Amino acid sequence: MKKFVNDPKDYVAQMLEGLALANPDTLKYVPEYNLIMRADAPQENKVSLVQGSGSGHEPAHVMSVGRGMLDAACPGDVFSAPPADSVYETVKLVASPKGVLLLVNNYTGDRMAFEMAEGLSRADGVTVRTLFIDDDVAVQDSTYTVGRRGVAGNFFVMKAVGAAAELGADLDEVHRIGEKVNSVTRSMGMALTACTPPAKGSPLFELPEDAVEMGVGIHGEPGRRREKLQSADAMVGELVDAVVGDLPYVSGDRVALMVNGLGGTPIGELYLVYGRAHRMLAGQGIEIGRSYVGEYCTSLDMAGVSVTLVRLDDEISDLLAGPAEIPMRVF
Amino acid sequence: MKKFVNDPKDYVAQMLEGLALANPDTLKYVPEYNLIMRADAPQENKVSLVQGSGSGHEPAHVMSVGRGMLDAACPGDVFSAPPADSVYETVKLVASPKGVLLLVNNYTGDRMAFEMAEGLSRADGVTVRTLFIDDDVAVQDSTYTVGRRGVAGNFFVMKAVGAAAELGADLDEVHRIGEKVNSVTRSMGMALTACTPPAKGSPLFELPEDAVEMGVGIHGEPGRRREKLQSADAMVGELVDAVVGDLPYVSGDRVALMVNGLGGTPIGELYLVYGRAHRMLAGQGIEIGRSYVGEYCTSLDMAGVSVTLVRLDDEISDLLAGPAEIPMRVF
Repeated sequence: MKKFVNDPKDYVAQMLEGLALANPDTLKYVPEYNLIMRADAPQENKVSLVQGSGSGHEPAHVMSVGRGMLDAACPGDVFSAPPADSVYETVKLVASPKGVLLLVNNYTGDRMAFEMAEGLSRADGVTVRTLFIDDDVAVQDSTYTVGRRGVAGNFFVMKAVGAAAELGADLDEVHRIGEKVNSVTRSMGMALTACTPPAKGSPLFELPEDAVEMGVGIHGEPGRRREKLQSADAMVGELVDAVVGDLPYVSGDRVALMVNGLGGTPIGELYLVYGRAHRMLAGQGIEIGRSYVGEYCTSLDMAGVSVTLVRLDDEISDLLAGPAEIPMRVF
Repeated sequence: MKKFVNDPKDYVAQMLEGLALANPDTLKYVPEYNLIMRADAPQENKVSLVQGSGSGHEPAHVMSVGRGMLDAACPGDVFSAPPADSVYETVKLVASPKGVLLLVNNYTGDRMAFEMAEGLSRADGVTVRTLFIDDDVAVQDSTYTVGRRGVAGNFFVMKAVGAAAELGADLDEVHRIGEKVNSVTRSMGMALTACTPPAKGSPLFELPEDAVEMGVGIHGEPGRRREKLQSADAMVGELVDAVVGDLPYVSGDRVALMVNGLGGTPIGELYLVYGRAHRMLAGQGIEIGRSYVGEYCTSLDMAGVSVTLVRLDDEISDLLAGPAEIPMRVF
């Protein structure tokens, strides 16, 4: 394993410590509960937003904390759900009189931790709701999931509810917007290589030199099928067809198009992938209203990409265009 | 080779096409000369800024084009200097009455191309100056270089001269600022793995599973020495010591600290590296005034990092804090 790590058990804590050191004016790291929060949270007149999941998907979600997006993120260890008591403590730290919305990607372990924390928080008198994100069209059930998985589409949910919360929307309204964005968002990814978790020290699965995993999960879960490596145009064509056909997105739709790198794919390749996806959509009469190219939700050092589409209306477009002051880039 | 490419000879053009498609309001791709320029260039009342180099270092430099940074970038093929006539055509397209500053990382091929283009442009009556960037402390001469190499520190030169040009500084003043920033900027990088150029289809050099290249160049050039893989703290310690000792940066200095990923290293590891570098500097009484963590100047899919320091004064701090509207993130 060739990585910048010390003791693998310290990997997440040392990453979070670096994140807070690099953003001393805006972020706070709370080592007891392994969480990153806005230095100025809670904001009394704003719904607070909390996201959590396993680590290893950075910049999701710890680098999406800041004005205009999350109030806190409570990551677990690499590819492990956060403990329920860490989620509970996070909710306590950022609870606002306007309530708390919990954003949860649809994995069984994350659901359990957040549902338990939601119950404990409600018993304390906190007004809290939970929203599940499940944008991955690749498979119906999966290794760690009943129903569809939540992947890079979570970025758009976080961004839209973050903007709505800043504008003063109440908890029901923020929840409605999150549900709405999730309902028009679809993603699919593919892996060229496996990823290597620091504590394991070797690739999480075997992928031959001439094969790719089409529809891979962000924890290396199996996708739709293992295929031969092909040209970028052919592989991206499969991704785009799968995503477009699912909602479906149709001629006349206006969309946000995201090409997300899974951690080991250079930005130059991501723009090549973007160009292919853009031309395919334009050829079908689908207008690209907003473009996102970069890393949003990764799988450690996996080489691969995912494609996400969001069907835009004026409400969603305006919320996505809102300001955000977070460590990751936002356009 | 597992990459998102079609025909490798089309790699750069298809990447640039994707970049322009993703930024239709701000960028223009000119296929004849393989260049990316601001859609609104030239600005009559502003010095124009042009950078070029081999491709494969994205986001440098094609993703640094936009208001507040470059007016145009003219990349060559992967790891190859741009042809002199492409540089010359780029200068013609963006030439402003206030003049043109050419920014060149110190590699022999790039110097030749830009010096030829500068001569041709001057013969046409364009007011033009050239600035060389050479921030890499690893080695004195190198495979493609007489003198020190230019690496990720070029970001700070581009950002500072970009801000100065937007504020209306004349060509001599913009050149002075670029020289000044370069003179207080130092970098060094290291590779965990080699990179694979699309046209070669195999790793550019051999690096055993237990070895790293300390002081590597961004084209895979040899560094100071090949070492055993160590803990992140030990390896980052070597990088920071080499950079700090060179200028040298001393107690009481205020600096910008950049941890730059070389393409294949995930952002989580970059923040871990940042935390180690930050604590080392703070322990020496060096204050971190600005922090940069992410990919700024890469070497395709190489796993590795570089560390850059810039000694700040009020003038440089203000210029680095200026706005920039470019595809890459800027803080």
